[in-house]
Amino acid sequence: MGAPLSFKIEARAGEARAGRLVTPHGTVHTPAFMPVATYGTVRGVSGADLRALGAEIVLANTYHLDERPGAEVIAAAGGLHGFTAWRGPWLTDSGGFQVTSLAQRAQVAEHGVTFHSALDGQRRTLTPERAVAIQEALGADIAMALDECLPADPSEGERMREAMERSLRWAERCRRVHSRPDQALFGIVQGGTQPALRRSSAQQTAAQGFDGYAHGGLGLGETLEQRDALLALTHACLPEDRPRYLMGLGRPEDLVRGVARGVDLFDCVVPTRHGRHGVLFTSEGQLRVKHRCFERDFRPPDPHCDCVVCTQHSRSYLRHLLRSGEALGARLASLHNLRFYLRTLERVREAISVGTFRALHDEVITSSRVRLG
Amino acid sequence: MGAPLSFKIEARAGEARAGRLVTPHGTVHTPAFMPVATYGTVRGVSGADLRALGAEIVLANTYHLDERPGAEVIAAAGGLHGFTAWRGPWLTDSGGFQVTSLAQRAQVAEHGVTFHSALDGQRRTLTPERAVAIQEALGADIAMALDECLPADPSEGERMREAMERSLRWAERCRRVHSRPDQALFGIVQGGTQPALRRSSAQQTAAQGFDGYAHGGLGLGETLEQRDALLALTHACLPEDRPRYLMGLGRPEDLVRGVARGVDLFDCVVPTRHGRHGVLFTSEGQLRVKHRCFERDFRPPDPHCDCVVCTQHSRSYLRHLLRSGEALGARLASLHNLRFYLRTLERVREAISVGTFRALHDEVITSSRVRLG
Repeated sequence: MGAPLSFKIEARAGEARAGRLVTPHGTVHTPAFMPVATYGTVRGVSGADLRALGAEIVLANTYHLDERPGAEVIAAAGGLHGFTAWRGPWLTDSGGFQVTSLAQRAQVAEHGVTFHSALDGQRRTLTPERAVAIQEALGADIAMALDECLPADPSEGERMREAMERSLRWAERCRRVHSRPDQALFGIVQGGTQPALRRSSAQQTAAQGFDGYAHGGLGLGETLEQRDALLALTHACLPEDRPRYLMGLGRPEDLVRGVARGVDLFDCVVPTRHGRHGVLFTSEGQLRVKHRCFERDFRPPDPHCDCVVCTQHSRSYLRHLLRSGEALGARLASLHNLRFYLRTLERVREAISVGTFRALHDEVITSSRVRLG
Repeated sequence: MGAPLSFKIEARAGEARAGRLVTPHGTVHTPAFMPVATYGTVRGVSGADLRALGAEIVLANTYHLDERPGAEVIAAAGGLHGFTAWRGPWLTDSGGFQVTSLAQRAQVAEHGVTFHSALDGQRRTLTPERAVAIQEALGADIAMALDECLPADPSEGERMREAMERSLRWAERCRRVHSRPDQALFGIVQGGTQPALRRSSAQQTAAQGFDGYAHGGLGLGETLEQRDALLALTHACLPEDRPRYLMGLGRPEDLVRGVARGVDLFDCVVPTRHGRHGVLFTSEGQLRVKHRCFERDFRPPDPHCDCVVCTQHSRSYLRHLLRSGEALGARLASLHNLRFYLRTLERVREAISVGTFRALHDEVITSSRVRLG
């Protein structure tokens, strides 16, 4: 495997690490949060917005983009970097998460996953080889191996082992066909909440050898303490000098807990999805801005925030927009929440460097449990 | 009546005029287009966006804002300039247009209009006095007299005369109670498509004396030629040195035709509404960007446009966003269309000054009739 990525750890605080991930399309300072652009756009947010917010890498979904507009259209545009207005680093997931999120429309067999599309009624089979081919066409800086992602369910011990072992076989098939020298390929550790399965998955995935490693299937039912322990035991089996990515998580609390166990990359739809529903993450807690109590509250959503929303708009105005179903409300709430997430990780990186990470970790957890409104 | 506005005509081309309207919150170069912010926001577009697009004045709807969030909330924020992030000049309509647009929910009597709200089931009566009180609370730079706006319908001759005469009585009641010295009040000429009614309305409205004058009830069924003639005969009855506003119109062609007859102000939801539906106004014609033929068209929507959309996004990407129901698609299309309208009027002003208005007028009409896709 080539070296499309370089990763350098520059500071540590316990297991937490601050580093620099250099990709073909730019440098990502880690720990980093990746906004989610399911269909090649973060809901309501443009490439220029993402740059202004301080994003350094963005995630897109292989499965959804292959449905619409189709990988060939994006390839014809020169890949995601040419098709969209985000020219910086991209990561594409493999479609493995859709085994869970579209479970009722997906059938898993050894050769791959067959989806019955809700969009056009067509059957689409995602094999490891096809997942790689699509991702090479999309041209992301980082591609993910196809995995069979199952939600944590202690009753499904044997089923979980099967999915974990199949994910290993699929990972190997992905590795074998992956050929773009300017694209990294990450493996994904599975195994649900069973420590033995997860350890085995981590050891074998590491032995296969990838540019980076991800935790799959977490945030789907385990407790915070279970997750902390699983992250720690997995990291003990992974090469220290490769980036680690906790897929699909989460709330600000999940991020700082993950960082404390050594995670370098995160992605989640929470900031944009919660934003659309009127939940704003602030330094003072979660603000449910549609609540009546904000009707005449003309303060900014977060008085300590530097974003374009907080410097120009009030809680009262945001409440009005969101209650009126105005698209600007969802947009402004998403912009604020993304800036809150990105700024939290900026603060995390700084705190790791100067030795104050533990205090910041506790502050984020405490404030993220407060509910306003 | 005080003089909250100063208006100076700086260049002419036939009946067309280019001028400068100075309001308490800034200068508007005329002829000007006012983006429509029904609920205090142009759909999907922020105050900062409007400034970047080159907007100089924005319109909001008295009736809708009084329903939600309520005039008192906006007054408590310091009016529209404090509540929203658009700090420049505002114009508020009076609610008279809702007599037509919400006809099935409105009952007109001499004292005012009673609306049966679709939002909360409540009855709200808009009298001339209340329309002024709400607009004074909203604090716009320009308020409109309450009128009874009917669509052009030649069969309703007597009904149209009644509405026109009632509008005159309501205008006088508005004038009598209007008291904010920092807010202009415009009268509205009605009378449908009947030249005699419209002339009579214009003469009597002018005799009452307003800071500016509007054409109401047009764009609701008359032919282009009828409208041109009605504008010309109305302008002959209005004071030359006061701004003239053609309410609710329209397409680019409607704008340049109105300018040619001496109109100074326009507003319309067409650029944003058409944008949301995937219709882009370009220098080459109306681009129906959702059409299949743009699937792999990686050119900008309008190669001659200077907007943030055209400099960073392709037809193919916009098509994908709009077909996927992504909010960013509606936003980008709205931003482009608004810039197209605002730039068209920038070009109109320049052309009036340098003597090339007739050529530009013809160019806009010709290109706006072309359909792409």
